[in-house]
Amino acid sequence: MAGMLVDSPHHEVRKREVALKIINSIIKKQGRSLLYDLTGLAGGFPLEKGDIDLLETYAGPAFFEDLLDAVAKEHLGGEKILAFNRTTSGVLATILALVKSGDEVVHYLPKLPSHPSVPRSVELVGAEYREFDDIKGFSVDDNTSLVIVTGSTMDHDIIEEIDFFKIIEISKSNDIPVFVDDASGARLRTILYHQPRAMDMGVDMVITSTDKLMDGPRGGIMAGKSELMELIKSKAHQFGLEAQPPLVAGMVRALENFNPQRILKTITLKDKLYKSLNQNLENVQKTPTGIIITADGLREELKQKGFETSLSAVDVSSVFSMLLLRNYHIITIPAVGMPGASPSIRIDLTSRDAERVSTDYIVEAFLETFKDLGKMVHDKNACESVLYG
Amino acid sequence: MAGMLVDSPHHEVRKREVALKIINSIIKKQGRSLLYDLTGLAGGFPLEKGDIDLLETYAGPAFFEDLLDAVAKEHLGGEKILAFNRTTSGVLATILALVKSGDEVVHYLPKLPSHPSVPRSVELVGAEYREFDDIKGFSVDDNTSLVIVTGSTMDHDIIEEIDFFKIIEISKSNDIPVFVDDASGARLRTILYHQPRAMDMGVDMVITSTDKLMDGPRGGIMAGKSELMELIKSKAHQFGLEAQPPLVAGMVRALENFNPQRILKTITLKDKLYKSLNQNLENVQKTPTGIIITADGLREELKQKGFETSLSAVDVSSVFSMLLLRNYHIITIPAVGMPGASPSIRIDLTSRDAERVSTDYIVEAFLETFKDLGKMVHDKNACESVLYG
Repeated sequence: MAGMLVDSPHHEVRKREVALKIINSIIKKQGRSLLYDLTGLAGGFPLEKGDIDLLETYAGPAFFEDLLDAVAKEHLGGEKILAFNRTTSGVLATILALVKSGDEVVHYLPKLPSHPSVPRSVELVGAEYREFDDIKGFSVDDNTSLVIVTGSTMDHDIIEEIDFFKIIEISKSNDIPVFVDDASGARLRTILYHQPRAMDMGVDMVITSTDKLMDGPRGGIMAGKSELMELIKSKAHQFGLEAQPPLVAGMVRALENFNPQRILKTITLKDKLYKSLNQNLENVQKTPTGIIITADGLREELKQKGFETSLSAVDVSSVFSMLLLRNYHIITIPAVGMPGASPSIRIDLTSRDAERVSTDYIVEAFLETFKDLGKMVHDKNACESVLYG
Repeated sequence: MAGMLVDSPHHEVRKREVALKIINSIIKKQGRSLLYDLTGLAGGFPLEKGDIDLLETYAGPAFFEDLLDAVAKEHLGGEKILAFNRTTSGVLATILALVKSGDEVVHYLPKLPSHPSVPRSVELVGAEYREFDDIKGFSVDDNTSLVIVTGSTMDHDIIEEIDFFKIIEISKSNDIPVFVDDASGARLRTILYHQPRAMDMGVDMVITSTDKLMDGPRGGIMAGKSELMELIKSKAHQFGLEAQPPLVAGMVRALENFNPQRILKTITLKDKLYKSLNQNLENVQKTPTGIIITADGLREELKQKGFETSLSAVDVSSVFSMLLLRNYHIITIPAVGMPGASPSIRIDLTSRDAERVSTDYIVEAFLETFKDLGKMVHDKNACESVLYG
């Protein structure tokens, strides 16, 4: 979406650079504890000094792999654990190991479209691909060598438990292994929707992302049955897809720190935050783990409150996000996102920093920032200087 | 190779576990500074506390990528820098980006065989593959879409500069991009053999391993021409092959710390070490960056000195390596290697810890350990207890 102030990738990069400078300056002058990253996307890397010393020796990798084995089995179940550079790398390794040219991969997900890593990897090995988001259409074929199930989509649509069991039943009765992409689902499905862990439902492999709804580095952890996991591990090492020891150490500490209560707490917190905001800004909406106001919604809200502006929706959400960062140290995506990121203002209450900030603070920050934005939107130069320095 | 005491992967794993416990105990009781890892294989991860705080914020990734760009361009040249999870992942990304089914990849290396990552990735995309270690046979074909050059093999055989230029000339005159696997060569070729950096010779891309002859994490850094690098970066992100921010941070600090003097110093140090050891143990040999005594050589040495034993070569080298660790805190591969690792005792003077230990100390440790081994090899039970605790 193009605006007057923000109308090219070049502008988006400049805006991001200004935001990163503000963040750096807050960290240096006031400390990390006065910065609130509520994007839900910041990859954590909760290592301690002792961990780094260990990583420099032969003992480190073995030490952290042992620890990972224990905490990952507790989180995911399964007989064997493998850590990947990304969930996408784990999907690739699985397809390389279990699917060959001429085979077919069948993918069920609660709502289309699929994450691109699945069809891309299938194409790479020269196999056929079918995907469904309606259980009625689900079927396997004579040449189906792998069934993939997405537990929870990028937008947090969740699979129905009854559909999940049905897919497993059909696949098992045809001797086809089932691989679950539970990137966010391993936590959303089980904690918010009380579904069993994928391995406990009888699947063969499951993978989850350690930066989604928990504070680990970007990366994937797979659990599964020993025999298939050996094949996948071999492909991972052949093509350089496995997580390296520093990443494994970060995953271990993140799983150790993981507390389902933080996700459960968001249910009531989210309702409270939504209520307080929505009674003042009616375009604020709920998400599964927080609230959102789209760029169009924000511009509409300005109009409803009598603030006239010639700026675009992207412009006003960018200015809003930057003001929220400058004045309230709250990071949202429009300020720091890569070119092409969503212009919506979204608060994810599962963010680690959400634990350090009160709902009242977020509400005040939101409402005061909206007022500041309102006073400013008639003045293009003032807005430009908020964005670019 | 099977022995009496060490005759299965199970034994190798047990031996390694005992060694890792000894290492842990040295670190805990006496500190990391009294441990000398001379394997040349320990991946470094020289982060500081401030780096970890930064990695937890949106500022971290951008911060370290900017730093990497500067230090990696200094090391490798080129217009654009990309960090990979492993050198193998970088090879895969390059072949995925530039080679399609039916194309041909031609690979020149100073000595066969190739690292398996090259032919494996070529096979994955369905292309043809030819490899040469004799420049006279080198040629390209109408369907050749990529020429790969290995600058220095795993055994440190180095390409001749004149052959290198010839390959570039042939490839360029046929408009075929040249990609250099300079995993160790980016340092060995330039520092010990005074060859130019690959990019300065006119190639299109080069990749190097940050854990070889420098103290970075296992991983790969690629430098190259912008246009091709954009294609490779896109494939890397699509399949999860890029290095994650924590790894990038480790690479940055390792490149900042990199000192060519450490490699240059090994030339004279190696000669000194070799001379002192060889006049007492004639089976000790030189390597490009240190010394080695094979398991068979060690057993032969025992025989020559009149120490009778019924133990195998693998057994005696395992006991030697474990004694060296227990009594002199020197780590060599037979004590800590994964099952199937070489049973040779090798000292690599480019290891970071080699800076903290004198040649005299290594010589004394070697000769005293050989004496201790000699006194012990008639006693199987004593040797068994050295190995397994």
